Amino acid sequence: MTWTPTAEEDRHFLSLAIEQARTSWDEGGVPIGAVLVHEGEVLAAGHNQRVQKNSAILHGETDAIEKAGRLPASVYRHSVLYTTLSPCIMCTGTALLYEIPRIVVGENRTFEMSEALLRERGVTVDVLDDPECVALMERMIAERPEIWSEDIGVETSELGR
Amino acid sequence: MTWTPTAEEDRHFLSLAIEQARTSWDEGGVPIGAVLVHEGEVLAAGHNQRVQKNSAILHGETDAIEKAGRLPASVYRHSVLYTTLSPCIMCTGTALLYEIPRIVVGENRTFEMSEALLRERGVTVDVLDDPECVALMERMIAERPEIWSEDIGVETSELGR
Repeated sequence: MTWTPTAEEDRHFLSLAIEQARTSWDEGGVPIGAVLVHEGEVLAAGHNQRVQKNSAILHGETDAIEKAGRLPASVYRHSVLYTTLSPCIMCTGTALLYEIPRIVVGENRTFEMSEALLRERGVTVDVLDDPECVALMERMIAERPEIWSEDIGVETSELGR
Repeated sequence: MTWTPTAEEDRHFLSLAIEQARTSWDEGGVPIGAVLVHEGEVLAAGHNQRVQKNSAILHGETDAIEKAGRLPASVYRHSVLYTTLSPCIMCTGTALLYEIPRIVVGENRTFEMSEALLRERGVTVDVLDDPECVALMERMIAERPEIWSEDIGVETSELGR
């Protein structure tokens, strides 16, 4: 990748993902957002669509990738995926399919599933531990636990496991 | 899982996935189809939508899962996913997220990416080695190689690697 974002740029692109997460919460949905950035240019921003589109596969990351449309392999390989929450295994698989080389994660305190697999397969995962991302998810888990458990494929009773 | 499909039932549900794959080819798309079956009942059938919907994330398996709509975790955990082609890592991740316990694969001669990961994580993967599934993909790779390479995140020049 020829483009190496500065820490300030990382914060900026993460803030766009957070904006998406806030929008999703305001719509009654899951507050997770993502942005796909190619060589400094935002290709697409997306957010979880479980509630809004009754979707089982549109998480923040997959929604952003879907909105970016059909792209040649080389574009993904020079892109960075910014996401407010540590990716689930579905979004991990999507990033691995397209060989996205770096993922910047807002936080992984409230949920972490697949960072080891990503790193094992050569993806750089940088966790910014952003307090606003944590707060968004803590409110979600407290106020909409049924939707959250559905979104990560667990029963509500298993949330604390 | 209480339901154990017979070999004949497996063939039947795979034939529904093949029907989806044929439809997709006739529409100018990628000939891969899938069916999600819960306790003997078809929840949804889908096919690759790269061409039809300009989609980067709707493969046969994810399209079927998306069409099945929002489901509780327990339903996926008692379902079988039938797919004409061995799942890519994105579809693998999706099956792992929802803990689908068994995947019946039409063929893995023309493409195989993630069966080891699925098995490692406890998923039963049964490959039926169906000649029609192989023929569908061989025609795809011969006649629409650019779309196929795009669909699996490689450059056309890398197809033979």
